[in-house]
Amino acid sequence: MWRDLAPLGRDSTTGGYRRYAWTAADADCRAWFRAQAETRGLAYEVDRNGNQWAWLGDPLAGDAVVTGSHLDSVPDGGAFDGPLGVVSSFAALDELRRRGTRFGRPLALANFGDEEGARFGVACVGSRLAAGQLTAARAHELLDADGIPLPKAMEAAGYDPAAIGPDPERLARIGAFVELHVEQGRALDLSGDPVGIASAIWPHGRWRFDFHGEANHAGTTRLADRRDPMLTFAGTVLAARREAELAGALATFGKVSVEPNGVNAIPSLVRGWLDSRAADEATLDAVVTAVESAARADADRAGIDLRVVRESFSPIVEFGHALRDEIGTILGRPPVLGTGAGHDAGVLSGAVPTAMLFVRNPTGISHSPAESATEDDCVAGVHALADVLEGLVRA
Amino acid sequence: MWRDLAPLGRDSTTGGYRRYAWTAADADCRAWFRAQAETRGLAYEVDRNGNQWAWLGDPLAGDAVVTGSHLDSVPDGGAFDGPLGVVSSFAALDELRRRGTRFGRPLALANFGDEEGARFGVACVGSRLAAGQLTAARAHELLDADGIPLPKAMEAAGYDPAAIGPDPERLARIGAFVELHVEQGRALDLSGDPVGIASAIWPHGRWRFDFHGEANHAGTTRLADRRDPMLTFAGTVLAARREAELAGALATFGKVSVEPNGVNAIPSLVRGWLDSRAADEATLDAVVTAVESAARADADRAGIDLRVVRESFSPIVEFGHALRDEIGTILGRPPVLGTGAGHDAGVLSGAVPTAMLFVRNPTGISHSPAESATEDDCVAGVHALADVLEGLVRA
Repeated sequence: MWRDLAPLGRDSTTGGYRRYAWTAADADCRAWFRAQAETRGLAYEVDRNGNQWAWLGDPLAGDAVVTGSHLDSVPDGGAFDGPLGVVSSFAALDELRRRGTRFGRPLALANFGDEEGARFGVACVGSRLAAGQLTAARAHELLDADGIPLPKAMEAAGYDPAAIGPDPERLARIGAFVELHVEQGRALDLSGDPVGIASAIWPHGRWRFDFHGEANHAGTTRLADRRDPMLTFAGTVLAARREAELAGALATFGKVSVEPNGVNAIPSLVRGWLDSRAADEATLDAVVTAVESAARADADRAGIDLRVVRESFSPIVEFGHALRDEIGTILGRPPVLGTGAGHDAGVLSGAVPTAMLFVRNPTGISHSPAESATEDDCVAGVHALADVLEGLVRA
Repeated sequence: MWRDLAPLGRDSTTGGYRRYAWTAADADCRAWFRAQAETRGLAYEVDRNGNQWAWLGDPLAGDAVVTGSHLDSVPDGGAFDGPLGVVSSFAALDELRRRGTRFGRPLALANFGDEEGARFGVACVGSRLAAGQLTAARAHELLDADGIPLPKAMEAAGYDPAAIGPDPERLARIGAFVELHVEQGRALDLSGDPVGIASAIWPHGRWRFDFHGEANHAGTTRLADRRDPMLTFAGTVLAARREAELAGALATFGKVSVEPNGVNAIPSLVRGWLDSRAADEATLDAVVTAVESAARADADRAGIDLRVVRESFSPIVEFGHALRDEIGTILGRPPVLGTGAGHDAGVLSGAVPTAMLFVRNPTGISHSPAESATEDDCVAGVHALADVLEGLVRA
């Protein structure tokens, strides 16, 4: 399976993946999913929000066990974030069939669309739409960096954007959702375990800081006459790091866009995106408020017009104790760990009993070609997922 | 004339111009130049480096008087920077013909290619190649932001890139070059004069700072484990401003490129371009050295790999006193001012007696749609240029 999936959307210079939602690379990945489903005789379908499903048993019977993840990627992402969960789902099903498991509940494997939000700036679009956390109206307004609206992109990929929206009937048929994911930190590496269970997802959000100054010639404008937004942006980047350190939280400016972005032009506009996360919402709020205050004070001094837009926010997600305990018992009490990363599982946990398994990542690196998992650990992940599914679906 | 030229390469959302070398917008401007030349019965030609010429009199006679400027623009540039000099050249010729001036020397109007360097990162490519300040080999290696090499871009625009290189025979035929340009500061606005004469162009250069860190997930990587180049870049932006202030110089980071530039990804690479200028070369050197030292110290502390590349450097240009005095006498001693901006006139001044006229810009703003000149001042500029040309060419 890996062999067919590995080359799709891979950039030959960076070695990283660029599988953005509704692009050709994404379509290739989706075709791969469909082929895997059909090879196994599973009933393939796409829901109204573009998420892919492969069913064993009656999709309408209810109380289904669902597993899966996503196939899209961040810019220059690694091979495992997302795909490991989808590939492991198919491999775990193969393992269950080898074991001769008798299925007492329907089982579905899923690939959720646009999890990373790399193209339209909002993460987990497929699951958020289904769960009603993102309205169809809002999704219809999303634009990518080239100004292409999400509905146009979906349509170009062969899907009907008019159909997107809440899908409570589908979610009501799910009795349990388990997502397997490569770990995005080094907790399992430090504890020496190949597989762990998620406790909670930290609250997190994305804020866009627009610093509006005045474009001017870099070679002729006196320093005193300048309204240079790059300076205020730079001060804000440093303030974000400082506030995150003080609060024990995370804050990152990883994306910037500059206008006009000419070597000899003072910018008219610098846009910086702040990603911030913390163990609880009060801390997160305090960090972002402090960063914005620092930016505003700096902007006022420098004649910069600052606008801050919260582009997304995900409250803390604590995975339900009942399913977590059941899985913990099946797997013999592996480590339980929190994570700062958002997931479709986090979105769905509001509507469906949900759990996550993590597979050890020895580098701890994520969203980079350097993210990794050993073959042995991937196999351990498949076996753990098979054990969990078997425990849940057994007749 | 303005009416035909104004819409070419104008961005409808920003109102700014995007006339990058060898693009469709540039081709439109060049077609406009040719049409203006032919309408006036001038002999049109393109030199080996893609610069356009329109001749009145014998191009081979020698001791020619040449005037002109450029038609390309920075990203979202204004309407006057470059085009005012070209339009005024044609208008001044019309004025001389109205006056019945008898020409004792050949006169040429010129449009120099790729003055702003907005596409390939090197300014004044057309004049630098002609003057031997940029080698053909180096020019052949230049790439734009999409990785398109300059020779391919020239070829696509219908020019022969194999021909580019020094053009001493052509320069030897020029007896005087006068470039009229909109002022890029407020000196004339403050002195209350519509037209001034240039004394010198400050030395200036462009340095690319590559900050290499490690891409990682913004939501899961502990602050202590990060090698985030955005932080070092931010510190360097602030250091550049500080050092320029201390030295009475100019330093600007106006262009940035980030990889992978994802909201939830710590960057692997931040590239920032430093533009710096000062009244003398020792000061400029001291500023850039101090900025680089600060950046390097910061980078070493943060585990960032820093590479600094000098992409261009222009020594100080003092316009020759003989021609400047002659023009000053013709125009009745208008103000004489220095400038931080580079120009084709600066490049050519090493090979040819060269002078510049500036037209008042009431905003002082440059490289922005807000740059301006009143109609009265533009007419005053045309009359001043006509007076100068008449004084120089008169039989």
